[in-house]
Amino acid sequence: MSEIATITVDGMTCGHCATSVREEISEIAGVRKVDVDVPSGRVDITSDAPLDPAAVGAAVAEAGYSVR
Amino acid sequence: MSEIATITVDGMTCGHCATSVREEISEIAGVRKVDVDVPSGRVDITSDAPLDPAAVGAAVAEAGYSVR
Repeated sequence: MSEIATITVDGMTCGHCATSVREEISEIAGVRKVDVDVPSGRVDITSDAPLDPAAVGAAVAEAGYSVR
Repeated sequence: MSEIATITVDGMTCGHCATSVREEISEIAGVRKVDVDVPSGRVDITSDAPLDPAAVGAAVAEAGYSVR
């Protein structure tokens, strides 16, 4: 089984931003897939088990953005 | 002596974009400094000798943008 969490990330403007967010979130243990839609800020995260929202928020902050 | 050339690059939206453009232009032989202003698209290039505009255009294109 896998979990899918959806968050909205503010401040992404281009594909580089998406790459930064994707890379940081992908480093969280258990994350298998990260889909980023820049215009809407929507980020779908597929993982092996439920994620700690604080870890996701920290990863997004590490990339230089914030979760809405 | 050094030369300073100013170009305007379209399509940069964030600091990642600026980094991409700076890195590609910096790879041109003789380039010493590249200053990028994202909001205006202005890029000031300091070099040891006059640059080939085609080489600059190719570098900008390689980064994924275009010279106005």
